[in-house]
Amino acid sequence: MPEHERLRGIFTPNIVPLDNCGEIHEPELRRYVDWLIDRGVHWLYPNGSTGEFTRFTAEERRRIIEIIADQTEGRVPILAGAAEANTRETIRACEYYCELGVRAVAIVSPFYYKLSPEGVFAYFKEIADHSPVDVTLYNIPMFASPIDVPTVRRLAEQCPRVVAIKDSSGDLPHMMRMISEVRASRPDFSFLTGWDAALMPMLLIGCDGGTNATSGVVPEITRKLYDLTLAGQIDQARDLQYRLLRLFDVMLYSAEFPEGFRAALRLRGIQTGAGRQPKSPSQQLQLDALARQVQCLLAEEGFTDEPVGGCPTLL
Amino acid sequence: MPEHERLRGIFTPNIVPLDNCGEIHEPELRRYVDWLIDRGVHWLYPNGSTGEFTRFTAEERRRIIEIIADQTEGRVPILAGAAEANTRETIRACEYYCELGVRAVAIVSPFYYKLSPEGVFAYFKEIADHSPVDVTLYNIPMFASPIDVPTVRRLAEQCPRVVAIKDSSGDLPHMMRMISEVRASRPDFSFLTGWDAALMPMLLIGCDGGTNATSGVVPEITRKLYDLTLAGQIDQARDLQYRLLRLFDVMLYSAEFPEGFRAALRLRGIQTGAGRQPKSPSQQLQLDALARQVQCLLAEEGFTDEPVGGCPTLL
Amino acid sequence: MPEHERLRGIFTPNIVPLDNCGEIHEPELRRYVDWLIDRGVHWLYPNGSTGEFTRFTAEERRRIIEIIADQTEGRVPILAGAAEANTRETIRACEYYCELGVRAVAIVSPFYYKLSPEGVFAYFKEIADHSPVDVTLYNIPMFASPIDVPTVRRLAEQCPRVVAIKDSSGDLPHMMRMISEVRASRPDFSFLTGWDAALMPMLLIGCDGGTNATSGVVPEITRKLYDLTLAGQIDQARDLQYRLLRLFDVMLYSAEFPEGFRAALRLRGIQTGAGRQPKSPSQQLQLDALARQVQCLLAEEGFTDEPVGGCPTLL
Amino acid sequence: MPEHERLRGIFTPNIVPLDNCGEIHEPELRRYVDWLIDRGVHWLYPNGSTGEFTRFTAEERRRIIEIIADQTEGRVPILAGAAEANTRETIRACEYYCELGVRAVAIVSPFYYKLSPEGVFAYFKEIADHSPVDVTLYNIPMFASPIDVPTVRRLAEQCPRVVAIKDSSGDLPHMMRMISEVRASRPDFSFLTGWDAALMPMLLIGCDGGTNATSGVVPEITRKLYDLTLAGQIDQARDLQYRLLRLFDVMLYSAEFPEGFRAALRLRGIQTGAGRQPKSPSQQLQLDALARQVQCLLAEEGFTDEPVGGCPTLL
Repeated sequence: MPEHERLRGIFTPNIVPLDNCGEIHEPELRRYVDWLIDRGVHWLYPNGSTGEFTRFTAEERRRIIEIIADQTEGRVPILAGAAEANTRETIRACEYYCELGVRAVAIVSPFYYKLSPEGVFAYFKEIADHSPVDVTLYNIPMFASPIDVPTVRRLAEQCPRVVAIKDSSGDLPHMMRMISEVRASRPDFSFLTGWDAALMPMLLIGCDGGTNATSGVVPEITRKLYDLTLAGQIDQARDLQYRLLRLFDVMLYSAEFPEGFRAALRLRGIQTGAGRQPKSPSQQLQLDALARQVQCLLAEEGFTDEPVGGCPTLL
Repeated sequence: MPEHERLRGIFTPNIVPLDNCGEIHEPELRRYVDWLIDRGVHWLYPNGSTGEFTRFTAEERRRIIEIIADQTEGRVPILAGAAEANTRETIRACEYYCELGVRAVAIVSPFYYKLSPEGVFAYFKEIADHSPVDVTLYNIPMFASPIDVPTVRRLAEQCPRVVAIKDSSGDLPHMMRMISEVRASRPDFSFLTGWDAALMPMLLIGCDGGTNATSGVVPEITRKLYDLTLAGQIDQARDLQYRLLRLFDVMLYSAEFPEGFRAALRLRGIQTGAGRQPKSPSQQLQLDALARQVQCLLAEEGFTDEPVGGCPTLL
Repeated sequence: MPEHERLRGIFTPNIVPLDNCGEIHEPELRRYVDWLIDRGVHWLYPNGSTGEFTRFTAEERRRIIEIIADQTEGRVPILAGAAEANTRETIRACEYYCELGVRAVAIVSPFYYKLSPEGVFAYFKEIADHSPVDVTLYNIPMFASPIDVPTVRRLAEQCPRVVAIKDSSGDLPHMMRMISEVRASRPDFSFLTGWDAALMPMLLIGCDGGTNATSGVVPEITRKLYDLTLAGQIDQARDLQYRLLRLFDVMLYSAEFPEGFRAALRLRGIQTGAGRQPKSPSQQLQLDALARQVQCLLAEEGFTDEPVGGCPTLL
Repeated sequence: MPEHERLRGIFTPNIVPLDNCGEIHEPELRRYVDWLIDRGVHWLYPNGSTGEFTRFTAEERRRIIEIIADQTEGRVPILAGAAEANTRETIRACEYYCELGVRAVAIVSPFYYKLSPEGVFAYFKEIADHSPVDVTLYNIPMFASPIDVPTVRRLAEQCPRVVAIKDSSGDLPHMMRMISEVRASRPDFSFLTGWDAALMPMLLIGCDGGTNATSGVVPEITRKLYDLTLAGQIDQARDLQYRLLRLFDVMLYSAEFPEGFRAALRLRGIQTGAGRQPKSPSQQLQLDALARQVQCLLAEEGFTDEPVGGCPTLL
C-alpha cells in the first residue's frame, strides 16, 4: 500500500472563461486561477462537471490543463479531470497530465450507457492499472453510471493507484458506508464530497474535503466553512452552511447547470463569457432574474453591491 | 401562534407483538412498552410504518393506541399514527386519540394515489382544521406522496395545529431547506428525522429529534447517540453513529421491512410473533441468516450472547 | 389445470357516486350500473383504483359489492376488487364476494411497503391457496409493488386459482413477455390491460381485454374500439384509439386521479357527487377548466352539447 | 414547408468492427455494409448508440461515415449520427456529412447534463438553423435528456430542417401523442421507433419505420416483420414480433449494451472484434453464456448451426 498523505481540503472545479468567439479565453483563465489561489482554495480541479468537460473537444481539454498547470506553478496541487472517449484515450490523457505535473486525475464513471457495477469496476481497473498518476473515482449518479459501495471497496483493495473518491450524490449515509468499508484497509484513501449543500455534516462524519462548485464563486465562504468545521466551531459552521445552501440552491436550481455559477462568477468580476449551450429567450430572462437574486446574496456577504433597485428584505 | 415547547427527543415507532393466532398480543405489547420506557426513549410512536399500521384493521389501530396509552400512564408522551381511509375517518381517529390523552398525532401523506403538492396541501389542511390535537406531518417519499418544502411552509403558516414534521427521506439538505423556510416564523415547529442512518448529522444541523426504528430494538444506543450529540461530544457520537448505521443497514436491507427489526427485537427478548405478511421458504432462510448477523452485532454491543458457532472477526 | 374460458372483454372499473353527506349514493350507483350495462360493457369491476377502494372503509367496500351484485342480477359478470389490510382479511373478503356470486376477484399487489418479487409471490400464493373464487392479479407499478414476469409465471404455474392478470403499466413489451411465459402452459390464463391509451395495440399483440377507466365514462367508445380491433378493422380502430387517447389524457393528467373521470361522468348525467379527497380552491378551478375541455371532446363524439361559449376549433 | 417523402423503412444502426489493435477494421466494416444491404435493410444508420459513437474520437466518427458513404455508393440512403461536443462542432459535422452525401443526420438529445425542455429546444433549434442537411431528433430518455411532446411540436413547427424523430423510449402512447401533435401540420415528418420489442404495434399505430439494433444482426427478420405488418398480415407479423422480442431481450439484457449484439453478430460471420469497454472475467463468462443462448435462437431461425452440445427444448 502506498504511503502518502490523504488528499484534503477544498478542491475548486473551475469554470472556463470563453471569449467573444466562444474560444478558451486564456488570459482570463489565468487571472481566474490567481484569483482563486489568492482566496485560499487548496486545490484546483479543472475539467470537472462545473468545467463542462463534455462541451470541449479533446484538444481543448488538454489545453485547459496546460494553461492551469503553467499558471499555477505549483502554488496549489491540481486534480485534473481526465475522462476521454474510451480507456485508451483516457490513459493517454493521464500520461500527458502526469507530465504536466498534476497531483492526481479524476475519472468520472462511464456515462451515456448505464453500466452495471461489474462494468464500472472493469473500466476503472483498466485505467488504474495503466495510469502513471494517482486516480480519483468520480461518482455522480445523476449524470453517470453509479459507483456502488462494493465496487469502491474492490477498487480500493485491488488498485493502489486509486487514492480517493469524489462523490456528488449528497447522500450522507452512502458516504459513511464507503468510509466504513474502505478506511480500515486503506487509511490513505480520501473521501471528498461534491455536494456543497452538505459540506459541514460530510466533514463531521469523516470526509477529507470537498470538490465544491461554490468554491469557484465564493472561495472565501467555502474555505471558511471548511476551517470552522475542522476547528470544531459547530455553531458558526452551521450558520455558514445554511447561508452557503441558499446560494448553492439559487445557482443550481434556477438555471441549467452550470449557468447559475457562471452568472454568479461574472458578478465577482471574472469575464466568463457566454456558455456553449444555446439558450432560448425565456432562458435568458430566467438567467437575468437569477443573477439579480445571486447579487443580493453576494451583497449580503459583502462581495458585491446590491443590484440597482435594491434587494427584498429577508424574513 | 401557539406558545409551546418544541417536540424533542427520541420517538420510538414500536412493532406490535402478535400471538400465535396473529392477533395483537396485549400482555407482550404492555411489557414492551415498559421495556422501552425503562431504556430511556422519550416518546412512544405507535401506528407508524414500523408498526405496520396498514396491516391492521381500523379497529385494531384504535385498540393499539388504547393499550399503549393505558400502559404508559403518562410516563412518556405519545405520538399516535392516525391516518385512516379518508379525512373524515382520520379526523375521527384524531378525536379519539385526543380523548385517550396522546400529545400529538402523526399523519402520513396520502399514499397509493400519488398526489400533487396542491393535493397534499388540501389533505393536511382539511385534517389540521378539524383535529382537536396537534398534528405532525409525516413525509416518507419512498412509500407515500412527497411533502415538498413549499407545502411544509404553507401548512406551517396556515395551520397552528401542525406543529412538526417527521421526515424519513434521509436527505439532509432537504431537512435544512425545511428548517430555513419555517423556523423563523414558527419557532415552535419541530423537525424530526426518521432516518436513523443520519441521526447525528441531522441533529447537528438543527433537527429536534428522531423517530427511529432502531430505538425500538436498541433504545440504549439511539438514546445515547442523541445525548452525546447534544452534548457536543462529536467524536464519540460519530463512532456510535457508524455502529448504529451497521445495525440499521442489516435490519433494513436484508429483509422486507420491518421483518429485520422484528427478528432483532426477538433477540432482545420481546415475543414479537410472526408478521402478517406471508414469507416464502427462501425469505425465511434469509431471515434466519439476518438474525444471526444481527445477533453478532448485538453481542458486540453487549446486548446478547454470540450465536452458537460464534461470529466472524471484523476487519 | 382448470378448464374454463378465458376472461375477455371490456371490464368497467366504476366510480362510486356519493351523496351530499359523502356517503355511498345507493340509488345513483344502481342507476349507473344499469347505464353501463345498457351501453355494452362486458364486465363490472368495482373496488378498483378508479373506484377509490382505499378511500372507503372495509364495511363500505363490502356494501359496494353487495349493491352492485344485487343490481346486476347476473346480466354481466363481476370482477370484485378484494384487497384488504392483510391476507386474512383479504381472504375473508374473497369468501364473502364469492357468496355474493362474483365471477372473480382482483387483488392489487401489496402497496405502501414496496415488496421484493419474493414477497409479492408469497402474498399472492397465500391468498390464492385459500380463496374460494378465481383470482386476478393486479399490477399497477406506479402505485403498488411491481409484479414482475417471473413472479407471474410462478403464480400461474403453482396456483390454478390465479386465472388472469390486469396490468396497468402500459408497457407493451412487458405484456408480450408475460404472454410468452404463461400462455403455453396456461391457455386459460387471461391478460387484461388497464392502460386505455394502448388498448388497440394491446389487443393486437394478444391481450384478452381491458379494464379501462374510460369505459366508465364513454362505454360506447371503449366497447366499439374493442369490437373494431377484434374484427380486424385496423384503420377505423386506430382512428378511434387516437380519439380515446385524447379523452384519456385530459381526464388523467389534468387533475388528481380519478377526479377527471368523475367530472366527465357528471357530464354524462351521472350524479357522482364530490370525491372524498379534499380540493384546494386552485384545484377546483383546474377541475372546472378540465370539465369544459372534456365537454368539448364529448360533444365532438355526440354525447353532450358544447359548453356555453363553444369549443375551440381543432387543428 | 418542404415537399418531400417521409423517411421510411428499416434503418440499421451498425456496430463498427474493430481489428486486433482496437482500431476501426475498415475491410470488415465495408463487408458488413454489403452484407446488410444484401439482406434488405432500407437505410444505414452509423454513429448511433449501437454504433457506440461516444467510444470513438471525433476523428474516428468522421472516418466511419466516410467509409460507409464510400462503400454504400448510393445503394441505400444514410442517416448519420452527428452529435459532437457542442453545437458548433455538431454543425461542422453536419456540413461534412452533407458533403459526403448522407440523406439526413440524427442528433441525440444533450446527454451527461440533464437539460430542461427549454434547453433541449434551444439546442436543437441552434443546430437545425445552421445544418445544411435534414435533421432527425433522437430521443433516448434512458441515456439522454428527454425530448417531450411539446418540444417536438415546437421544433416541427419552427424548423423545416427537422424532418423526423427517432424515439427509443418504447412508450407507445407517447409515440401516438407525438404523431397527434405533429402530423397534421407537418405531413412530411417521420416517426421512427428505436424499440425493436414494439416494432409491429408501433407501425400499426402510425410509425414510418424503425431504427432497430436487431436489424444489424438479423436484418432478414426485422425487414420481414416490417413487410408483413405493412401488408396487414397481422397474425404472421405478431408471431414474428414475439420471436424477435425473445432475441432482442437476450441480446439487450444479458450483457452491457451493445455487447450482446456484438456477440450475436459474430455468430453471423462478421468479425466484430472486441469492444472498447473493458470486461471483467465474470462479464466475459456471462457473454459466453449469452452467445450460446443467442446461437440457439439463431439456429431456430435457420441462420446458424446449434452450438456444440445442442440447445434446450423450448416449452
